Amino acid sequence: MTTNATALLPYEAEDRLEDEIRSSLKDRELEIYQMMSWQLGHSDDRGAASMGPLERRLHGSLLLAVAQSLHGDYCIGLKYAISVELMYNFALIHADVQDGNTERMGRASVWWKWGPSQAINTGDGMHALARLSLFQLCDEGEPLERVSKALEIVDDAVLRRCEGEYLDVAFQERTSVSVADYLDMVSKRVGSLYGASAELASILDDDFGVERRTALRHFGESVGIVRQLVADYRAIFGGDDRDPVVQGRIISKKKNLPIAYLFDTVEDPSILRRAGEMYMQRVIDPSRIAELTSLAADAGGREFTLEQIRSHLDNAEDALSQAGIEEDVRSKLMVLAKDIGDVDSADSLSD
Amino acid sequence: MTTNATALLPYEAEDRLEDEIRSSLKDRELEIYQMMSWQLGHSDDRGAASMGPLERRLHGSLLLAVAQSLHGDYCIGLKYAISVELMYNFALIHADVQDGNTERMGRASVWWKWGPSQAINTGDGMHALARLSLFQLCDEGEPLERVSKALEIVDDAVLRRCEGEYLDVAFQERTSVSVADYLDMVSKRVGSLYGASAELASILDDDFGVERRTALRHFGESVGIVRQLVADYRAIFGGDDRDPVVQGRIISKKKNLPIAYLFDTVEDPSILRRAGEMYMQRVIDPSRIAELTSLAADAGGREFTLEQIRSHLDNAEDALSQAGIEEDVRSKLMVLAKDIGDVDSADSLSD
Repeated sequence: MTTNATALLPYEAEDRLEDEIRSSLKDRELEIYQMMSWQLGHSDDRGAASMGPLERRLHGSLLLAVAQSLHGDYCIGLKYAISVELMYNFALIHADVQDGNTERMGRASVWWKWGPSQAINTGDGMHALARLSLFQLCDEGEPLERVSKALEIVDDAVLRRCEGEYLDVAFQERTSVSVADYLDMVSKRVGSLYGASAELASILDDDFGVERRTALRHFGESVGIVRQLVADYRAIFGGDDRDPVVQGRIISKKKNLPIAYLFDTVEDPSILRRAGEMYMQRVIDPSRIAELTSLAADAGGREFTLEQIRSHLDNAEDALSQAGIEEDVRSKLMVLAKDIGDVDSADSLSD
Repeated sequence: MTTNATALLPYEAEDRLEDEIRSSLKDRELEIYQMMSWQLGHSDDRGAASMGPLERRLHGSLLLAVAQSLHGDYCIGLKYAISVELMYNFALIHADVQDGNTERMGRASVWWKWGPSQAINTGDGMHALARLSLFQLCDEGEPLERVSKALEIVDDAVLRRCEGEYLDVAFQERTSVSVADYLDMVSKRVGSLYGASAELASILDDDFGVERRTALRHFGESVGIVRQLVADYRAIFGGDDRDPVVQGRIISKKKNLPIAYLFDTVEDPSILRRAGEMYMQRVIDPSRIAELTSLAADAGGREFTLEQIRSHLDNAEDALSQAGIEEDVRSKLMVLAKDIGDVDSADSLSD
């Protein structure tokens, strides 16, 4: 987290969350748990404790920050934050198999190291473990109603995420995808788990009504959408030094907002033909990505994407108002939202 | 179910279960649900309702039969039976990707038809849906404590199943595996979900104590182990007309009981060398499977496997006694156990 975000959460929150995530695998000996631990960055490839490069725990941080905002105590959200992080990492393990990503955080991805078969198992196991970590809360005195509500929120989010993943893959086969369909997919694929993270923080207070809870879920969803759209912006307009995962997505014809906008709005048949031709190939020719980005820029994709990012940031802020969050806390949560969305990395948004 | 098993369950139980499974996907439009529906045998490859070949709903039937035995009414178990069947089918979808099975019930497997990426999604989605189908029970008046206990039982079973799948794949890389390690793997990989199925039937009565509940889980686990050992017996000693999945398991060096027994007990170095040589290759040479089965037979693997099957059938029956099931019901449940285990198909056990 940046210094700005720590205005909301004390510095040690991050470490405490990491400790909790690590302890969720404690006393589990079988090698399948070593693969999980490798994924989480907590061990080397032989299972020995060792701190690897860590993913930022953005879902967990969002949950803790909302818990702090609503209840003045982020700690009551720690155990719930474990489960969203385990869920997210289950999804990453499977996504790496699906997309053929050989690296994750600068190390071999689970499937690349142990094979696709074991990576599918490891993801499935982490999926089950994420929920079992919630059941344990009952033993620690959390009321069953709350734990059960949490499980339902997480399961709903995972199902929506699967729907989104399905669409993301299905869109690869289509030449063009409308902006509306694309945004619906992003909301499901990325927004779902951020939405669940924010919503989970709200159930820690039994008196928090369902409308305010829904508003908080929308806040989280918008944050997730912003994060994806910023990534889309950088993938297309951020220059040529893309990381391999981002480059791989473009080449494999995964869609993004500027390209959806291009096909949705351009009427000039010669431009549509040039772009369409590229998406009719089995993969996008890497040497033609520069041409694609310039077609997208000419179509106004840069401005449109920035506009959409701003608009989803506004949605996030409106949702916080609807959730009854007061202005000073709201502005702190929006700092965190922009941090999660990596908004500063998209030029002309950093003002 | 055979005629014998229907002595415990009325004939229409099977159809009612099938209807319930089908209705769990009702009103879900996205194509990801069509893939689930294809897997379940309820639609053609374009999502149109059409009855394909159906897997036998062995987990669901076990649950219903135990429910009938304990409570005199199988119907109260129907909604719980959906979730074990969805869980089982989630596991099948992923297992087909992992093992490269191109067929399932005489039709293309999900990954073969829609690609591994979508098959992983479909399995993940079905995993989430299996639990959401349990949450819905709260809306229908089931007490939260019971539903929540059911979720925990299912999640525990899925995690154990993943541990078992991990071991099954890890054993491929080893030349030999001990009988004890092999049986532990089978108990996790196959026993877990049958154990959960029987256990779930017991929580429908709040007064059913934890010891009797555990005994019922052991009953289910033993039934699952019997089923796998009968499959092992037939794979090695059942002649050469193996189905492609079974043949594929042997070739890919997945272990089975007769082979574990061979390496565990034979001391003659020349025999161990001949068998070891085959398991040191990347895959087992199909033309040498006959040689392998004759080595296993000479080592006494046939008698040992039959003995183990009988012994796990005894375990199943003992567990039913410990669960306090009276003799006449017990013998009916054992008829079902043998039916699920496909015991009649292993010669010299059909007496």
